[in-house]
Amino acid sequence: MRILLIGAGGVGNAIAKIAARRAFYELIVVSDYDPARAQAAVDWIRARHGDEVAARFIAARIDASDPASVAAVAREHRATHVMNAVEPKFVEAIFAGARDAGADYLDMAMSLSHPHATDPYSQPGVKLGDAQFAEADDWEAGGRLALVGIGVEPGLSDVFARYAADELFREIDELGTRDGANLVVRDDDGNEIFAPSFSIWTTIEECLNPPVVWEKDRGWFTTAPFSEPEVFEFPEGIGAVECVNVEHEEVLLMPRWVDARRVTFKYGLGEEFIGVLKTLHLLGLDSTAPLRVRSASGPVEVAPRDVVAAALPDPAGIGPRMTGKTCAGLWVTGTGTDGAPREVYLYHVADNEWTMREYDAQCVVWQTALNPVIALELLATGAWSGAGVLGPEAFPAGPFLELMARPEADGGYGQAWGLEERIPSR
Amino acid sequence: MRILLIGAGGVGNAIAKIAARRAFYELIVVSDYDPARAQAAVDWIRARHGDEVAARFIAARIDASDPASVAAVAREHRATHVMNAVEPKFVEAIFAGARDAGADYLDMAMSLSHPHATDPYSQPGVKLGDAQFAEADDWEAGGRLALVGIGVEPGLSDVFARYAADELFREIDELGTRDGANLVVRDDDGNEIFAPSFSIWTTIEECLNPPVVWEKDRGWFTTAPFSEPEVFEFPEGIGAVECVNVEHEEVLLMPRWVDARRVTFKYGLGEEFIGVLKTLHLLGLDSTAPLRVRSASGPVEVAPRDVVAAALPDPAGIGPRMTGKTCAGLWVTGTGTDGAPREVYLYHVADNEWTMREYDAQCVVWQTALNPVIALELLATGAWSGAGVLGPEAFPAGPFLELMARPEADGGYGQAWGLEERIPSR
Repeated sequence: MRILLIGAGGVGNAIAKIAARRAFYELIVVSDYDPARAQAAVDWIRARHGDEVAARFIAARIDASDPASVAAVAREHRATHVMNAVEPKFVEAIFAGARDAGADYLDMAMSLSHPHATDPYSQPGVKLGDAQFAEADDWEAGGRLALVGIGVEPGLSDVFARYAADELFREIDELGTRDGANLVVRDDDGNEIFAPSFSIWTTIEECLNPPVVWEKDRGWFTTAPFSEPEVFEFPEGIGAVECVNVEHEEVLLMPRWVDARRVTFKYGLGEEFIGVLKTLHLLGLDSTAPLRVRSASGPVEVAPRDVVAAALPDPAGIGPRMTGKTCAGLWVTGTGTDGAPREVYLYHVADNEWTMREYDAQCVVWQTALNPVIALELLATGAWSGAGVLGPEAFPAGPFLELMARPEADGGYGQAWGLEERIPSR
Repeated sequence: MRILLIGAGGVGNAIAKIAARRAFYELIVVSDYDPARAQAAVDWIRARHGDEVAARFIAARIDASDPASVAAVAREHRATHVMNAVEPKFVEAIFAGARDAGADYLDMAMSLSHPHATDPYSQPGVKLGDAQFAEADDWEAGGRLALVGIGVEPGLSDVFARYAADELFREIDELGTRDGANLVVRDDDGNEIFAPSFSIWTTIEECLNPPVVWEKDRGWFTTAPFSEPEVFEFPEGIGAVECVNVEHEEVLLMPRWVDARRVTFKYGLGEEFIGVLKTLHLLGLDSTAPLRVRSASGPVEVAPRDVVAAALPDPAGIGPRMTGKTCAGLWVTGTGTDGAPREVYLYHVADNEWTMREYDAQCVVWQTALNPVIALELLATGAWSGAGVLGPEAFPAGPFLELMARPEADGGYGQAWGLEERIPSR
């Protein structure tokens, strides 16, 4: 397996670092629009793991917005797999470039949605991934695999959905992805500061798009932003966090392969963050349309959302100032294999102090990066295989969860996941 | 009386329009950094009131940041009074220019404060008006008057304080300025939008500075922003509004001339607006320090607060889209002249539909502009006189309130003010 990794930002950097401890591939080309950023990842691997490991990594420059550039770099290095680790706005270009180069493709976020023109808070318009699923037949006919949405959410959450359907439930009422954290960022004086752990630009995009929900008798439908607020209790000391519906890939993926009555995604933004996003929207500060603003050197044109991003700390740099844990998981309700009502929460927790110490990566970014590496390894060994445009729930969950949890000393990733049995409320 | 009016923005424009109906002055020079804006005010007066009235108005250009420019324009037109109607950051320059020109001076906001360097939320640093009171002896010795804080708040609220002390109370516990409104702004489709009725730039400045409170046995002290939230019931259908402590001139003025145990200012921002201001502060979007931000033409430097202002509708333009009333007043508690506990709310309400119809001015701006015109008339007739740096409460309240309320047909301003007797809570 020869992997072209596109993007050496937070998640791409962590993918390279996690893969550096594994042996399943021949080569990883770490590519970025900024070649210095790609090189920095390779240098870190050399410093931490030595020349022999680093010899399996090459830094390269790429333009992720241009399918021809993607295909050219893939061909140059005879890539068998293209691993997309950049912003979702580049999905379609990389997807096309990988196909042109005859490589398999993986991503952690799918092609972007566009709201319904006249009824955005009730009907979906162009859905997440629609542009990719439109080409599924071509990929399948060509015998090539596009494994889409294989980060942590989407990704691990979808693996949990497959596992719940195969092993835990006879019938599923709801597959509810639920994500929450108790991360705190402090300034030099130890005071808590407002510093989102993920790109505010992307978070605004996700949270202000109309959330999508799937129901068996209704199909996909949308709601107004921040709908169905619910306080969800997260494990391992994180506790209760206010969650709301958010547009996310799981809702588009799970119903294609897993039988359930309802599929939802709720993001544990917490009350404060929800309030911040609502205020940004109220004031038009979420807008990406440039505004004319006075400045010391005369009027300039800036997009308010870019100003918001510039005013906040860079999420890639807050790891050392951050404490706490992030939890990604799937809450499943329905009828257990014994016929009795059952409710479980399947989850994985990453502790920022541990990910910083082991990987120099903050936990949200690291947790996202873990899953595509496991998936690549399963594809390399043949434990997972397929053709077409497939989500993680199209593959058997057992090998993934087993490899993830097995201790590193025994050849696994040493990342325990949890199953919390809950008292069914209905 | 020859008046140099500095600033033809919202309030300056309304001062000119209100004064146009009166006869107490010989000339008003309407001046602005933008001469077209000054001319527009004069043109409106000509169109509405004819050539004879407009003949008493001249438009001029001025640089309010430069004392020499202020003094030059004042001398050129032999101004006897300089009426400052621009942003408070220009107070010191205009104050100095007026003194150099030998003119009396009036303003509606005092020289700016600077927080205490080490203990900002407990001790005042440089207080509002300190720079002006430092020169009080000089003004008094020269026989010149600086009448500071004679808008609506400060201004009418201070007149009410004098009135309460002289006519209504034997002893005053609290002089509590309370300001609230039920204004709603709608877009073309009739949907309510977020559109502050006063400069967001100035509102941020006022609301995020440490609020100041005065107590007889403690003097002036400060608190954290948004302290002592209280729901205050406003009259004439406005109803209950959440109010919080805000730094405002009344607290610096009233204790100098009126005996009370406590002096406060609470602004009826309402919960939504308080939340917006807190969020802007949390994200650093209240900052006036330029940030480097990406733009289509490369990185630019902009102050986040300027971006927030640019993203919101211009308050000067929302009058036609606005409905509702604004109320300014003083809540007084203590012992009445009969020795019994007493609690009153003295107030004035402006209805936006009326101010738009009569003056093409939105109500918050118009209400502010009304009071300096009344004060100028009292100075012109000699009903008010004095020397030094004096607040409105240094003058007898009776003539002001009488002239304000007397019908226009009888030579007054036809603006009724209210006294609401409340049931004392203590």
